[in-house]
Amino acid sequence: MRIAVLGTGIVGQTLGARLAELHHQVVMGTRSPAATLARDEHGRYGTPPFNAWLSQHPRVELASYAEAARFGELVINATSGAGSLNALQSAGASNLADKILIDVANPLEAAPSGPPALFVANTDSLAEQIQRAFPYTKVVKTLNTVTARLMVNPRLVAGGEHTIFVSGNDAEAKKSVCEWLEAWFGWKHILDLGDITTARGVEMYMALWLRLAGALGTGVLNIHVVKGS
Amino acid sequence: MRIAVLGTGIVGQTLGARLAELHHQVVMGTRSPAATLARDEHGRYGTPPFNAWLSQHPRVELASYAEAARFGELVINATSGAGSLNALQSAGASNLADKILIDVANPLEAAPSGPPALFVANTDSLAEQIQRAFPYTKVVKTLNTVTARLMVNPRLVAGGEHTIFVSGNDAEAKKSVCEWLEAWFGWKHILDLGDITTARGVEMYMALWLRLAGALGTGVLNIHVVKGS
Repeated sequence: MRIAVLGTGIVGQTLGARLAELHHQVVMGTRSPAATLARDEHGRYGTPPFNAWLSQHPRVELASYAEAARFGELVINATSGAGSLNALQSAGASNLADKILIDVANPLEAAPSGPPALFVANTDSLAEQIQRAFPYTKVVKTLNTVTARLMVNPRLVAGGEHTIFVSGNDAEAKKSVCEWLEAWFGWKHILDLGDITTARGVEMYMALWLRLAGALGTGVLNIHVVKGS
Repeated sequence: MRIAVLGTGIVGQTLGARLAELHHQVVMGTRSPAATLARDEHGRYGTPPFNAWLSQHPRVELASYAEAARFGELVINATSGAGSLNALQSAGASNLADKILIDVANPLEAAPSGPPALFVANTDSLAEQIQRAFPYTKVVKTLNTVTARLMVNPRLVAGGEHTIFVSGNDAEAKKSVCEWLEAWFGWKHILDLGDITTARGVEMYMALWLRLAGALGTGVLNIHVVKGS
């Protein structure tokens, strides 16, 4: 499949590498490919500069947001939450129309103290903002509740016995995404929460996730949903 | 132990009944005992009127918020989130001073559409509001992430293999609460998230919980936290 991964940070890199490994055609999208390639500082989490990563992944290509989105049959939003709407506007509504957009971003911003806070919550969500801005795109929220390594390899934790969520308005699109989550990454427990407004739940869960990571001393964590009979 | 349970709804009833069964001395607190006893309509979830419940639990007593709080060595806030600060003001700072207050309330209010929304979130929480209002009380947030029946009987789901959280500023108070959660209710997996600001995480999780309950068709559910090695 031709897949556009928008965003060249650790999330985009991790998804791009796994999808290329699965022999998909992956184009990563960024605001300015020249600027992204020229950057030589390490990432926030000690990740190497993008150009070093790209040279180790020769089957992945880098392009502008618009070129990547035009290329992709499937588009993944792996940009930072604060930059997502701008990045998607750059990608262009016509390049996103009629396509599935997997949104893995979280609407986090630095807080005056403590862990990051959400810049949209409660009666709206980033996924809904994106869906409203791109009404002809099938937005499916998923994977935002786990760290990048776990997105593509749930077996890293508890043998994969934990839950990932999908939210979206288009039932067929969600069905495809569920199949891909299982086939590409090995997710065993996928829970369809409902329409795109249910993304509020998974985005607000980040407030708990950040505290869980603090208490457990690792971001390689997830939750398994269990219910009574 | 002498325990005050503030709030006579389904949460207060469930906690009060279990604690009385364990031979604690339980006094339930309400705004006006006479009005609570005079009420004859069923509760929102089909629960019987409080007077009918009380007649089935003869070892439980009913009193005003202030009388109950004065009586209790331990106080549990099981009022609705929207009414919690007022109820605790009625209980009186001096009756709550130096005591552990277990806060199980959620700051939910009706939303224009869809499930309830949070009236405080993100950079503050109900538990923090309570702790600021009652600085001499040891507020421990816990149990708010599960439905009443599950609070007192985690084995209802997955053999009890799921997680409950505690948040609070006083380490000794949290230690006591953890011991009680295990001894009284049978909780096996208790995770200390940190200081009272971590209550933001468990309160904001309600946004996900409400959608989980919708998707699963039951509120008898919980999450089990798993992590990588």
